[in-house]
Order: sequence, then C-alpha cells, then structure tokens
Amino acid sequence: MNRPVISLTTDFGLTDSYVAEMKGVILTICPDATIVDISHLITKFNIRMGSFILAEAVPRFPEGAVHVAVVDPDVGTDRKSILIETKSSFFVGPDNGLLYFAAQNQGIKCVREITNKKLMLPHVSNTFQGRDVFAPTAACLANGASPSDLGPRIRRLLRPTFAKVTCKKDKLQGEVLHVDGFGNIITNFTAKEISTIRNSEIINVTHRRNNMDIMLCKSYARTEKEMFLAIIESHGFLEIAINHGNAARTIEAQIGDPLEISAVRE
Amino acid sequence: MNRPVISLTTDFGLTDSYVAEMKGVILTICPDATIVDISHLITKFNIRMGSFILAEAVPRFPEGAVHVAVVDPDVGTDRKSILIETKSSFFVGPDNGLLYFAAQNQGIKCVREITNKKLMLPHVSNTFQGRDVFAPTAACLANGASPSDLGPRIRRLLRPTFAKVTCKKDKLQGEVLHVDGFGNIITNFTAKEISTIRNSEIINVTHRRNNMDIMLCKSYARTEKEMFLAIIESHGFLEIAINHGNAARTIEAQIGDPLEISAVRE
Amino acid sequence: MNRPVISLTTDFGLTDSYVAEMKGVILTICPDATIVDISHLITKFNIRMGSFILAEAVPRFPEGAVHVAVVDPDVGTDRKSILIETKSSFFVGPDNGLLYFAAQNQGIKCVREITNKKLMLPHVSNTFQGRDVFAPTAACLANGASPSDLGPRIRRLLRPTFAKVTCKKDKLQGEVLHVDGFGNIITNFTAKEISTIRNSEIINVTHRRNNMDIMLCKSYARTEKEMFLAIIESHGFLEIAINHGNAARTIEAQIGDPLEISAVRE
Repeated sequence: MNRPVISLTTDFGLTDSYVAEMKGVILTICPDATIVDISHLITKFNIRMGSFILAEAVPRFPEGAVHVAVVDPDVGTDRKSILIETKSSFFVGPDNGLLYFAAQNQGIKCVREITNKKLMLPHVSNTFQGRDVFAPTAACLANGASPSDLGPRIRRLLRPTFAKVTCKKDKLQGEVLHVDGFGNIITNFTAKEISTIRNSEIINVTHRRNNMDIMLCKSYARTEKEMFLAIIESHGFLEIAINHGNAARTIEAQIGDPLEISAVRE
Repeated sequence: MNRPVISLTTDFGLTDSYVAEMKGVILTICPDATIVDISHLITKFNIRMGSFILAEAVPRFPEGAVHVAVVDPDVGTDRKSILIETKSSFFVGPDNGLLYFAAQNQGIKCVREITNKKLMLPHVSNTFQGRDVFAPTAACLANGASPSDLGPRIRRLLRPTFAKVTCKKDKLQGEVLHVDGFGNIITNFTAKEISTIRNSEIINVTHRRNNMDIMLCKSYARTEKEMFLAIIESHGFLEIAINHGNAARTIEAQIGDPLEISAVRE
Repeated sequence: MNRPVISLTTDFGLTDSYVAEMKGVILTICPDATIVDISHLITKFNIRMGSFILAEAVPRFPEGAVHVAVVDPDVGTDRKSILIETKSSFFVGPDNGLLYFAAQNQGIKCVREITNKKLMLPHVSNTFQGRDVFAPTAACLANGASPSDLGPRIRRLLRPTFAKVTCKKDKLQGEVLHVDGFGNIITNFTAKEISTIRNSEIINVTHRRNNMDIMLCKSYARTEKEMFLAIIESHGFLEIAINHGNAARTIEAQIGDPLEISAVRE
C-alpha cells in the first residue's frame, strides 16, 4: 500500500518551530506519512491568499491525500474546526473559507465538525490548534480513521466572498487574485471569459490609472525582453507578465486590486 | 519497524546547498530516514535563538528521534563535537550550549564526545562539520549504531547562561526569549511564576520606557483588534501579543531585552 | 530496495504553489520517492547560480538519484528538454547550461532529448514545464523507466561560458562564483591553482579598487574576530571570509565580479 500523503499550508513562516511541531505530531501518530509543504509563507492572516495557493496545488496531489491548512486569525474563538471530504481527498482546518475553493474544485461530499477530543492532543491550547487539533486529526485520517470518527456532519460552511468576474458594457471586471514570486499578476479572468470579449491577439487592460494594450502570447519568450504580455497561466487564469521582468512591481499591482479587460478599439 | 526520524536545525539559510548536502549524506548512509527540518533560518551564529527553537520543537517528535543542530561559530577550533543521550532521544552537534535546553527537558542520561573517525566522512573540513561529522554520525545512530561507538563519555558540557527569572520587591524580572514571525514576544516567565504575583486578570509590564497594563487572555481574539494582550503560549511561557497585529514591532522589542512584570496597583 | 531519491533545484521561491505542484506530480507517479529540496531560492533566471548550487550539492547524494533542476527563462520556446545520464545519477531539466557542471563532475555517459509525450502530463503548458515535463519524467525514471524511453540521444548540449581561471604575469585572474548566506565569497580559484602562485601563508587579493593581503587559514577562528581570511572551502575553492562577519557586504562583492590573486611582494 502507498504511504499516506499529508500536505501543509500555513502562514507560520519558516523561521519558528511551529511547522516542525506539526510534523513531529503527525509522525508520532503516523510514522509512515509523506509530508509535503505547500507553502508556509502565506501572508499572515491572509485567508484569501492561502485559499488561492491551496487550490492551485491540490489538483496535482495523489488521490486520498489529506490537506491540512492553517491561516487562522480566529484561533481560540468559537470558529469551528472542520473536515471536508471530497471525491478525491480530505481537507482539515478552520471553518473560515480557507479550504473552500480547493475542496469545491474536487466535489464536496460531506462536511464535518471536528469534535472528537480523543483524536486531538491531550491539551488543546488556545493559540496553536494547527498542532493540537488539525495535525493529530489529519494523522489519524492518514492512518485510516473513518471520517465519521472525527465528529458530526454539519450543513453549512463559511464560503468566502472573493470577487467574481462580471461583465458590464463589453468590459470584464475582475481583480488581482495573486502576485507570484516572479511578479506575475494572476487575475481571476478565465481563458473562457477572455474569449467572450476579445477580437484580436491584443487585449486592453485597465489597472488604476494605467490603460494598456497587451499582446496575448503562448509563452513568455514570444515578446521582446522587458515587454508586457498576457498569457493563460498554468491553472487557466489570465496572467499579466513582463518577459524577464517583474510586472507587479512595474505597475504596483497588489492582491485585490480591481482590473478591467476589454477588446481593443479598432 | 518505524522509519528513523532525523531533525535538522541550523543557521545555514535556505538559499545555499548546505542543508541539501547534509541530507544527501544522511540518505546515503540511512536511505530510510525521514528527515524533518525544524528551522534553517536561525539568525547566523545565534546559539540562543537556535537553542530556544530546538527546545520548542523537540517535545513533539517521536521517541528515538535523532536531533542534529548546527549553529557553530567556532567550527574548526577545538570545541568538542558531542552526542547527548536523553530518556527519549539523541542530540548531535557542537558543544556550545545549543543542545542543552532541549536535551535537559528530556532528562540527560549521558554525554559523549564524538571522536570515532570511522563514522565521519573520509575528509573532515574545517568549515562544514555539519556535513562531515554531525550528519554522518546522526545517520549511523539512526541506522542503529550504539552510542558508545561514537566516542567516550565526558563529564562536562557547556551550559548556556541565558537569563533566569528573578523576583525583587514583588516584581518579576526576566527577558525576551524569542520574537516569532507574527511579532509575538515570548518571554521567559512561566505561567506558574506569573501566578505568584498577579492579583487580577491584568498584569503590569515594563519594557524599556514603556509601562503597560495588559489583560491576560485565553485567546488572541478575546481583545479588540489592534489591542495588546498577554497569553500563556503553547509552550507554557507568557507571551505579549497584539490581536491581528505585531507587538514586537510596535514596542521595538528584541530577543534579550529585559522585562519586568508586576501586579496591577489597586 | 532503497526508496528512490529525487532532488529539486529551482528559482520558484517558497511562497507559491509551484514546488508543491511538482512534488504532487512526482508522488502521484512514484509514491515511494524521497524528495529532497536543494534550493528554491536561486535568483530568478540566474542559470549560473543554479548551476553552482546544484554542482555543490550533487556529490553528496546517493548513487542513482534523479536531479531535477528548473531555472528556465526560455520555457515555452524551442529550447530542448534534456536528460543527462552520468556514471552515478540522472539530471533532468532545460538545455540551457544549468545541468552541465554537476553532470560533468560525475562523468557524462549520454545526453537525450526528452520527447516522449507519454511520460509527460497530458497537457503541457507553455509556462510550467517543471511540473508538466520534468517532474513526471523524473518520477518515471525513479520508477525504473529506461533512459531510452525518454527520447533519442543527442550529440550536443549547451555548455555555459562561466569564466575560467587564467594566469597572466604571475597573477591569477578569476571571479566570484557565489556569495553564500554568511557573506562568504566563493571564488573559482582551486586550491591547486593557488598553490602555483603563493610563496607564503599570505596571498594578495585584488577586487575592484581594493587590494588586500589576506592570510590563508585552516579555520575561520584562526584569525581575530572581524578580520579577513582566506580559506579553502568545503568544495575545494578559495573562499574569502571575515571571522564572525560578512565579507561580501564589507567589500561589496557580487557574483561575477573579477578577482586577481598573486603572491605577496617580498
């Protein structure tokens, strides 16, 4: 049988002991686990960024993986701890929207509140439930515990309100979903949405006071160095980039900024 | 049998090849090892910070784990290389205080100087004993080598002089042990020590010229956003934090700063 | 049989989902793989830095390891994807010089272009071939696929033109190969080359307008704190360092800077 895979996504950073404490707990319960870090550099408390990065990574993981995510500004309050079962994997974390997109992409089968104290560490702190609740619960699942052992089904889970794309007078209105380490600006426009408005290989993009005509390319290298380009990135979203450069720094784009896309005027 | 667990704590950073060289050496000798990074972002040469982070993480690891730590400004001198055997695990690293707290918490059984050249790499450099001495030695231990194979027992090991809490005229005097990535200020006051002086849910904290009355809370979210709070953090120490904010940046607190705690005047 | 080892070296950073996507792909195909990160903090598009760090780490890995490296500014163009077979391991990545030094050190047996679409992900994007081509190909190799399954032999591969050491009027001319996280300046002068010119334990180093007599030491601690020293570092190159200090920051040295070494005038 394959070794169970557990992924971790947090805003804990890489300097402190927090991530290692979760791994120690997991390996104590499930010594055979293969633990994969998705990212621990989610901006502190930025549920939206965590949600995006988790959703990007999850589709590449083996079936049956247990995904633990902790961006949890309300740890210690009455926010619920949840398990989401999907058609291909499990998600464990706080009920604050963080898990929603990644789970929804896979087809949500069942949501449970994690209430079984026997699967948690003996002492559950108010400040570090990633270690005390989520890590041991995930390790028990990886060991073969039945989802129903974790706690009762619940009907509702918090759905995040991240912006949707709207269309107004032939203009698509959306926003910056993510800025990656290369400075590439990933938008929430899908390839399909872009195809409804464009009439050529060039699209018109408005970001704050900048209005630019940008070529839609199939690779970064199709434009001259230092030129803007648009590209459908590897997850199907429209990305605005600069060949060998940093697009986000150049136009000072940040996560959440509104964007407008339209056809180029003829 | 479970796969052996080896943890790594260093000030090597994540850019260079150093950590991977240690892992390559370990996997060559002990291909079945599960290697867990505790942190490689210890501030360069900061034995105290390494000591704290190692001590925080170790209690969560499975029994029998081998903990390798390398913050080693005196590599290449006559500082000893040591193995500390405790009731539940092994510690391998330089004899400079780095391993002491984590090992002491588990009950030290025996200290040995690592002298057996057969367990080291054939060529031991003067600059990188993490790779040439500690990694191969730890991998041999994980493979089942007897501690006595490593070298002779020694009686003394270097004990670090990090500050202890003292009590003077009803005031506790201690210091900042660590500032984590959230800007939380972890002090060396234990919950028990705090209970000896406080007379209400509020304590008085002096840091440099700041004197503040701060509420002791059970979770970050018990105060308004942007408010100071005190909390017993997940390892039992008093922590000073700001709900949804960065306490250390706000009062410019750094590792080593003196702190004074007293009851609130009535 | 030992679990297969796959190493990863990229300029993807540690914040985004990219590295985890590669790991998810690998573990889906080869669940038993031990994946080791060499570095994901190669400066974006810096093939030379990636080449150096890969070459430093690889000699420490077990025989049979598969080394995947992706610093790939020309992804999506007609640059080839290649497999290099050496006497002890496999290298998978773009044909842009990145793999050359590490592979050459081990003795190159055969170079192949990776063309077999059956070993790649079903959809190969133009922006992320680390995930779509290199990760699945490496996982297939780790699973035991024959190198000849990947694609046809090719005769040429791109050889990088990083500077070689030359000797002119008793002066060695070379350059800064790498600046590590400690600020140590690693040069491309080997111990052997240095021995051809020096006449004492002191060498004369010229970097830009600085001309310094520096002592060749066997450990950092052989000089006073804050003093310059030269040392043969753990991979056999001449390194310029400051005991307990940051040499690169002090003389503002950067990767690629020219250096001149000569004997001390008597």
